[in-house]
Amino acid sequence: MKLYDESDPAPNPRRVRIFLKEKDIDIPLVHTPLSKGKHKAPEFLVKNSLGQLPVLELDDGTCISESVAICRYLEELHPEPPLFGSSALERAQVDMWIRRIEFRLMQPVGQIWVNTHPFTAAVVAARGGKQHVEFGESNRPIFESGCKWLNRELEGREFIAGPRYTMADIVAQSTFDFARVIGVTIPDNCTNFLAWYDRVNARPSAALDLSKSLLKLPT
Amino acid sequence: MKLYDESDPAPNPRRVRIFLKEKDIDIPLVHTPLSKGKHKAPEFLVKNSLGQLPVLELDDGTCISESVAICRYLEELHPEPPLFGSSALERAQVDMWIRRIEFRLMQPVGQIWVNTHPFTAAVVAARGGKQHVEFGESNRPIFESGCKWLNRELEGREFIAGPRYTMADIVAQSTFDFARVIGVTIPDNCTNFLAWYDRVNARPSAALDLSKSLLKLPT
Repeated sequence: MKLYDESDPAPNPRRVRIFLKEKDIDIPLVHTPLSKGKHKAPEFLVKNSLGQLPVLELDDGTCISESVAICRYLEELHPEPPLFGSSALERAQVDMWIRRIEFRLMQPVGQIWVNTHPFTAAVVAARGGKQHVEFGESNRPIFESGCKWLNRELEGREFIAGPRYTMADIVAQSTFDFARVIGVTIPDNCTNFLAWYDRVNARPSAALDLSKSLLKLPT
Repeated sequence: MKLYDESDPAPNPRRVRIFLKEKDIDIPLVHTPLSKGKHKAPEFLVKNSLGQLPVLELDDGTCISESVAICRYLEELHPEPPLFGSSALERAQVDMWIRRIEFRLMQPVGQIWVNTHPFTAAVVAARGGKQHVEFGESNRPIFESGCKWLNRELEGREFIAGPRYTMADIVAQSTFDFARVIGVTIPDNCTNFLAWYDRVNARPSAALDLSKSLLKLPT
């Protein structure tokens, strides 16, 4: 088994690496730099026809893409500690929260990145496309209202999906780590949310390593 | 147990209703018309603070939102026929395909709907917002290239995630049913894809009922 991977801050590969650390699973990583277009090379498109990272390749050559699907597979092989819930209801709640974070918060972050960030402006222009800046900017208040919603939800709650750390925390953490790198931050008055972020960042799995990244944390 | 629901063509409630028919599960439906703002009423926001449908309410009052999370819960209660896969690998593949359809195809359909459709123009304006029409239009070629990609993937394959009908087919079917209603169609040359669409539409679970809808199929 091996994992085609990209360094921080790429949010989807990061999710799987955090999951591996939380589970104490060791899988060889194959560095596949997006900046060199390795994810669009013909030999990679055979593994994932969408040309996206990460991809888990099994020993028989079968490939699984999509970070959450990869982690779901690994959860069945290594059930402890459970990160997708321990009962039918918990599993549904973790899935619900993964989806809420992705659709309500990661989506506006992604649109801000694709449609307003100077780094992607160059990438998009090279492809003959263009950024839709006004639309991208309209996602900032959507992100902010999403943060306020999540802050209310986290009142009196330790982790995103309930009292235990789960895959929903990993999805949220990778979202806000990436957001921070592109200059999008959690509002100061979201104190429950910021306390949660401190909590997950204190875990040994959390270290963000930007040494190989073209993007650095804004100062 | 009861399901807060909206009529066709709303794609997310539709997914759960198709799933229920495929499983032959009978759950009381509580019609919650979006057009009357019932999903934003305080008594509904207690069930889903995001104000979205569908929501499954359990007998003890616990609520699960997000169509796929609801179906995942019901799958554990009613395992036959399996619609999320029958092994760790199959379950990962079904999840991968659900996500691929949502991110690669439902997303552009959603952006075309929100940012170009005359029906949503009025809704967005009433909220003091605006449509980003140029951005919305830019999603049409993204949808088309996504259809061509899916068409290639379906070469020699009966269903979205492999030889068996799964939740990934339900997610895809609800996407293209909704797309059709808003005038976005599968390109004619996507013959594998169109054959798949005929296949799922021939199932007893498929009937699209627009009798209560303000949107009708374009003629």
